[in-house]
Formats: sequence, C-alpha cells, structure tokens
Amino acid sequence: MINKLVENIKKTEAPIVVGLDPMLSYIPSFIKEKAYAELGETLEGAAEAIWQYNKGIVDAVYDLIPAVKPQVAMYEQFGIPGLMAFKKTVDYCKEKGLVVIGDIKRGDIGSTSAAYATGHIGKVTIGNNTYAPFDEDFITVNPYLGSDGINPFLDVCRSENKGMFILVKTSNPSSGEFQDRLIDGRPLYEYVAEKVAEWGSTAMGDSYSYVGAVVGATYPEMGKLLRKLMPNNYILVPGYGAQGGKGKDLCGFFNEDGLGAIVNSSRGIIAAYKQDEYTSYGEAGYADASRAAVIAMKEDLKQAL
Amino acid sequence: MINKLVENIKKTEAPIVVGLDPMLSYIPSFIKEKAYAELGETLEGAAEAIWQYNKGIVDAVYDLIPAVKPQVAMYEQFGIPGLMAFKKTVDYCKEKGLVVIGDIKRGDIGSTSAAYATGHIGKVTIGNNTYAPFDEDFITVNPYLGSDGINPFLDVCRSENKGMFILVKTSNPSSGEFQDRLIDGRPLYEYVAEKVAEWGSTAMGDSYSYVGAVVGATYPEMGKLLRKLMPNNYILVPGYGAQGGKGKDLCGFFNEDGLGAIVNSSRGIIAAYKQDEYTSYGEAGYADASRAAVIAMKEDLKQAL
Repeated sequence: MINKLVENIKKTEAPIVVGLDPMLSYIPSFIKEKAYAELGETLEGAAEAIWQYNKGIVDAVYDLIPAVKPQVAMYEQFGIPGLMAFKKTVDYCKEKGLVVIGDIKRGDIGSTSAAYATGHIGKVTIGNNTYAPFDEDFITVNPYLGSDGINPFLDVCRSENKGMFILVKTSNPSSGEFQDRLIDGRPLYEYVAEKVAEWGSTAMGDSYSYVGAVVGATYPEMGKLLRKLMPNNYILVPGYGAQGGKGKDLCGFFNEDGLGAIVNSSRGIIAAYKQDEYTSYGEAGYADASRAAVIAMKEDLKQAL
Repeated sequence: MINKLVENIKKTEAPIVVGLDPMLSYIPSFIKEKAYAELGETLEGAAEAIWQYNKGIVDAVYDLIPAVKPQVAMYEQFGIPGLMAFKKTVDYCKEKGLVVIGDIKRGDIGSTSAAYATGHIGKVTIGNNTYAPFDEDFITVNPYLGSDGINPFLDVCRSENKGMFILVKTSNPSSGEFQDRLIDGRPLYEYVAEKVAEWGSTAMGDSYSYVGAVVGATYPEMGKLLRKLMPNNYILVPGYGAQGGKGKDLCGFFNEDGLGAIVNSSRGIIAAYKQDEYTSYGEAGYADASRAAVIAMKEDLKQAL
C-alpha cells in the first residue's frame, strides 16, 4: 500500500492528505437540516449529516489528492451510527481511488494489538468465512507499549500489504512533556524514531517502508533530524494550517526527491468556507471552497519545496 | 464513579475486575452454533456469540465482583456488529450494578481527545438532544501526548463524575523499551506517575481520585514504588493469572487499608473451563467454571493481602 501511496502522490503532484475530521459545527445548516428531517436530532441524524458532508468534500477534491485521513474519534463520538459513517467514508474514498489512512492511534499489549490490527487493516475468520471489518489502507499507532505492541500490526502490514504510521513526535503543545525527555542526552522521540526505522526495515515496499512515522508540522527542526533517522520511512505531518504549520517550515520533512512526507490538513480544507478568504463560497459552496483550499495548499507546498 | 467503585469493592470484599475480552476460540461450540444458525458465519453471528457468551459469564459472577473491563479491541475486530456487542455488554453490566471500565487506551491531541471523551464517558449534543454514546464508567487512556491530550478526558471526568486509568507501566514484556528509559536517573514511568498524581489531584472523589493508573502485575517491585508516588490514585493491575502475576506479588499495589488497587483477570476467568482445574465443568458449565475461578482468585488475593 505504500507503493500505491507514493504512486498517488507522484500522479497528483500533491504530498497532501485531507483530514476528514467532521465536527457538527463545521457542517452547513442545509445538510444538517435535511439529515435531521429524515432521521431526527439523533445519533443517526448526526451520522447521516457527517456522511453527506464528507461525500460532498470527497467528490470535490478526490482528483487532486492522493489520500484522506479520517480521524475515528470524530465518528466514535456519535457511537455506533458514527462508526457506521466512518466505515461508509472509508469505503467511498477507496472507491474513488484514494488511499485511506485511519487515524485511530491504537496500541496495546500483543494479543490486543493483534485484534486492533485484524479489525482495521486485517481480516477476521468466522467459521468458513473471512471478513475485512474496517479495511483501511493505513492506520496510526501509539508506541508507548514497545515492540510487542507493535509487532502484531507489523505482521498484518506484511501479510495484507497495508501500512501504519507510528507516533514519534506529535503536533500538540504539550507533546514535549514525555516525548522530549532526555535519555543519555537525546530526547525520547529519537529513540522511538530509531525503532520505527528498525521495525520498518522488516516491511519494505519498493522504495519506502510499510511503516511510517507521525511528526508534527509544528516542530520543523525536529522534522529535519527525524527525516535523517528514518530515511526509508514516510512521515505523516499533521499540524499544517489551523495548528500553525506552514509550507516553508516543512522542507526538512521531505527527501531530496520531493518524496518521503505527506502533509495533513483537516479543518483548513474541510471547513475552508468558514475562513475569511473563502467566505464568498457560502455554505452552499462549502465543497468548492474545500477544492480551492486544496489547490492553495498544493501551491504553498510546491513553492516551498 | 470512583466512590461507587470503592463502595462496590468494599461490599464484595473483592478487589477484582473481570476482563470481558472474548475471543471466538474461548466461546463454547453450542453458543457459536446457535448464533451462526440464526445469523450465519458473519460478523453479526460472531457478535451475537460474543454477547451470549458474555451474558452467561456476567449472570454467573456479577454478585461476586465490583467491576468488569471489556477490552474494546476484541469487539472492534468484528467491525460494527462487534461494537454493537460491546455496547450491549456495557449496558447489561451497568444494569447488573457493576462498574464498567472500558479498556479503550485512547489518547490524542486536545480536540480529538475531547471527541473520544465525549463518545465514551461524556455526552454529545445534537440539535436540542443529548446522548451518552458508549457511556462507560471509566476508560483507560494513553499518556504519550502529554497534558493537553489528557485534559479533555479530565474535564469530562469532572463534569460527568466518570473516571479514567492512565497507562503508567504496562504488563507486557517489552513495556520497558520506552517506559523504563532513564531520565536523570529515573525511569519514564515514574514521571508519568507523578503527572497522574498531579492530574488526579484536580478531580478527587471522597478518598480516591477520579484518575487512576494502569500498572502491570508482572512488575511487583515497581508497583510498590508507584503506589507511593500516587497515594490517592487507584491502580488498575492487569497481568494476573494468564500473564504470570500471582496474588502474593500484588501486596505492594495496595494501601494499608486494603484499598487502592483493583486486579484484572481476563482469560483466567472467562475461559476458566479450558483450564485443567476446571475441565470437569465442560463447555456447558463454562459460566459456572468462571464463577469458581472468581472465587479462587478472591481467596488467593485475600490470603495474600
């Protein structure tokens, strides 16, 4: 799947992933009103609104981008109906040829990680039948439990040609509380990065590993260093736009061939119509505003790289 | 909710939580056959088998124990139908008066942690209505992202009187890879424990905090030290039984009043009928075997403490 991601990035010339992280407050009133009229002000109504909102955005931008990253928490907050909207979104994006990165940040002891891997990127056997329950292409994984929490994900990546991005240095302000702690003079995140490189070396695609890393756009200097520690691992870079990262800060995350990193923007794309520069689109034009925001982001990155 | 947990522990005289972590291989054939006959060898059939299996165990042990801990990964691996079985299990256990600890190990940047908190221990507002989507009493949380990933959970714990257990030192063999790294001569997990004590001090119940910690039974010496670093925080102790921990190893996790820790056993209870000492119960008596295993665990802990 890393090969498909690289191929999609080359084809679109856009190292961009759109974060499909819907909040009810982002969704235009006309979509919510229609969904609530059909299904009530219920979890089902909210899930339907999310799905219609996502579909509008995906239809407007799918030809411009290589991948999407739905954040499962934004669906999980609406319970079972929300997770059904997550699954519909995953399936629809794959139909459109997009690589789907499930931003699930799971991670547990061995047998439990195995169950998460099965559910999200693997297959489960029931009697004589086999199912791929959520069937994302990539997922994000938390490393706090160490190798035996990571290995089951690695096994499934290899057997199913799927991928994962492991949290190394996250984009939030207090990420340093534990991740930056110095161990023999080097921060914890460097040790995690070295493990990512090691784990990744056992699951290589054509030029990059099935195993990538998450490194926040908000820490460009660290990005440069981590790029060197993980030469064959794709870096998923959250924090562009709304969280403060800009294109020119991101050069260090990329390799010289312009590959090796994929930059996520969520609110900046999906709720573009709420920003000053795109208000002219109005609620009705929310998806076109998202398209305009993708084009602007693509241009910003192209100029920077 | 910490007050209810303490009260339940005192009432049952059992600092025990039963891990409802169903694997298809644990479930007696007669349950699977019935479920598959009704719903096919499908995700729905597997979910029905899990639910019936859980119900049998809960009915057999609920009067002996204060709490259960369903591990969501074991349900998530069966997709949406699996998560519906998770929700049914949560609701049923609460009806039976049990405290439900959702073992979800979520954790992300602020706005995303807020969505997880809403979905699992909080309430979501849709138009004029409010829903509690999964509505567990406690959840487990991963600390890797630091304070701003924890605070949204803390806010919901306070507003909803719910609770959480934060991973400090996990029970798996490679937990030391990152958690034991020395920072100025002290392991990372001690720094996490100090933060747990600090976070917890802002959300106190009558005698213990709404915020607890996860510390594996497999590390008894660390348990003693961590008990002192977190005097007002309940410790959830996984790894008893199948993972190697025994009652006598666990004294250090408890305070002198016999409170302060709750020990989890999953496979050792729910699949007791597959163990040598309980084979006489047979598949048909799987739930009674679970009851016998709870009584034996209770006795083991009583002798040890």
